[in-house]
Amino acid sequence: MTKSPRIAIDAMGGDEGPRVMIAGAALARHRHERFKFLLVGDEAQIKAALDDHPNLRAASEILHTDQVVTGAEKISQALRKSKTSSMGLAIQALKNGDVSATVSGGNTAVMMAMAKMALRTMPGIDRPALAAFLPTLGSNDVVMLDVGANTIVDTNNLVEFAVMGAAYVRIALGVDRPRTYLLNIGSEDQKGKEEIREAAEILRSLPSDHLDFRGFIEGDKINRGEADVIVSEGFAGNIALKTVEGTARFVTDLLKQAFTSSIRSKFGFLVSRPATELLRHHLDPNNHNGAVFLGLNGVAIKSHGSANVAGVAKAVEVAARLVEEDITARIAQDVARIHGRDKATHD
Amino acid sequence: MTKSPRIAIDAMGGDEGPRVMIAGAALARHRHERFKFLLVGDEAQIKAALDDHPNLRAASEILHTDQVVTGAEKISQALRKSKTSSMGLAIQALKNGDVSATVSGGNTAVMMAMAKMALRTMPGIDRPALAAFLPTLGSNDVVMLDVGANTIVDTNNLVEFAVMGAAYVRIALGVDRPRTYLLNIGSEDQKGKEEIREAAEILRSLPSDHLDFRGFIEGDKINRGEADVIVSEGFAGNIALKTVEGTARFVTDLLKQAFTSSIRSKFGFLVSRPATELLRHHLDPNNHNGAVFLGLNGVAIKSHGSANVAGVAKAVEVAARLVEEDITARIAQDVARIHGRDKATHD
Repeated sequence: MTKSPRIAIDAMGGDEGPRVMIAGAALARHRHERFKFLLVGDEAQIKAALDDHPNLRAASEILHTDQVVTGAEKISQALRKSKTSSMGLAIQALKNGDVSATVSGGNTAVMMAMAKMALRTMPGIDRPALAAFLPTLGSNDVVMLDVGANTIVDTNNLVEFAVMGAAYVRIALGVDRPRTYLLNIGSEDQKGKEEIREAAEILRSLPSDHLDFRGFIEGDKINRGEADVIVSEGFAGNIALKTVEGTARFVTDLLKQAFTSSIRSKFGFLVSRPATELLRHHLDPNNHNGAVFLGLNGVAIKSHGSANVAGVAKAVEVAARLVEEDITARIAQDVARIHGRDKATHD
Repeated sequence: MTKSPRIAIDAMGGDEGPRVMIAGAALARHRHERFKFLLVGDEAQIKAALDDHPNLRAASEILHTDQVVTGAEKISQALRKSKTSSMGLAIQALKNGDVSATVSGGNTAVMMAMAKMALRTMPGIDRPALAAFLPTLGSNDVVMLDVGANTIVDTNNLVEFAVMGAAYVRIALGVDRPRTYLLNIGSEDQKGKEEIREAAEILRSLPSDHLDFRGFIEGDKINRGEADVIVSEGFAGNIALKTVEGTARFVTDLLKQAFTSSIRSKFGFLVSRPATELLRHHLDPNNHNGAVFLGLNGVAIKSHGSANVAGVAKAVEVAARLVEEDITARIAQDVARIHGRDKATHD
């Protein structure tokens, strides 16, 4: 049995504001008629954006507020708007059970703080982690976490991130025993920081029926398709995620320059266009949009601030999928299993 | 006046051993006849490799040892071979003034430890940093440091890295006031870790005639050509460096797949080949080879373990350039200037 998800959309988050957020929700709704929405933000702007999407309007309720969280806002300042801003109200709706997931394209750090405060972390989880998909040479994307929620972590945080990341991949990609690695600056046992080496030892000792721990992975192997889950603290994880995005854009920009450098190469480009379009599609961050705060009592999804309509739709679909698959309960089960085993070992 | 550099080559470092190291030195010597060499390692293997390079043989002396440092070796274990291994002897030769630079393609962490122990850090520098070049969309490469020497740093280490990185770019690329950034997970003032925010404050207060501090940069902007120097602690810096390399390879692999996916795209590929060859050349890590340990009393250059002949030659040329430009003295001057000013401010 699956639930029919109702999803809160922070209509004011994202660089482009309501127009893109609403059009993205409409596209997702167009593909999945069972989705329902709570659209949070400036009513006049939301109504105007809905004019183009009668299909979405019929499935939506509007929750008005004229307060927003801005991109550059300090967390302490933004948190004062926890119950008045569009982001804050969208998260409150999730807390109160009015919706079963929330999607926002707003400030990541503020969303993390608001979601953590309102939803609380799951039993057995010390800190939530932000998990994002990245493209690979393999048949599946790889999940990287944490990509920015926690800049300082300890051994147990890393172990919990690994367990949550593996549970997420099992649900989102249907992989039974996700190949799980710790991001490090060398693949030998003695490399890197102490907490990473200790986390590796613990992960090696865990039952491997739900998580296939494979050791350390370096930055140059992220996209090879060898890993399903890559675990890191949030600083290096964020750097890695953005460096992948930036370098992919850099190389395709260079390619464009190369292709337009002569008449001959322009001609070759036109001929091979269908092939390079496939490449562009595969690398487009919009096709991997929808980062998840794992470890909270509720499904909170971060859409890229610069996501386009297709990207927002993708984030909404991730939200719906995770609700339907009951990710929160399934992660809680996995964490309980690990802690049970932990207890059995250490008691 | 320029010195005629004599360079020690750890002939046994690098994944391919003497053949590639010797051929790389020969290529560099072919381009710059003033270079002289001390080739350190197994004499029989070096002599065999020299058979193909009479030009190099005439300019070289061989220092025999049958001990080597291996890739997976623990630092403590490897350090016992500081005065007997090819890497150790090549560094000792630099310490004793027998050569003016040392190039090795061996284990980075071991090279760092040996070089630091033998050469010591410059006056006023707490820790050396490993600096590497990366390609950009702009006309110059960008220097990133630290890319793996120090996984834990404090505020002053980051400030010193910035000063050394800027001095390096002035010498290596001829840029007067290098645009210098701190790698961070957000561009706003309050983002990231405390030591990064504090380092930003200090860098803003330094005299800007030799270093143009521009604030924070994120992983997705590394290659845009906006930065001449990017400063980080060694963990995230290493992750960023390798992620750039890995993602560039990933995208060109995808491109190859795309181009061979149909007869039509294969034809287009053949037509545009000169353009894509330029791209490949620009992205090839061999063309950016030669990472420098900045902050030591001597020029120690790390060549990529997997560098090819052209890559090793590039590393040798970096070594020669830095000797001829007297980088050690020039960095010492810059550090003294900063510390003088520091004193004036705080006294």
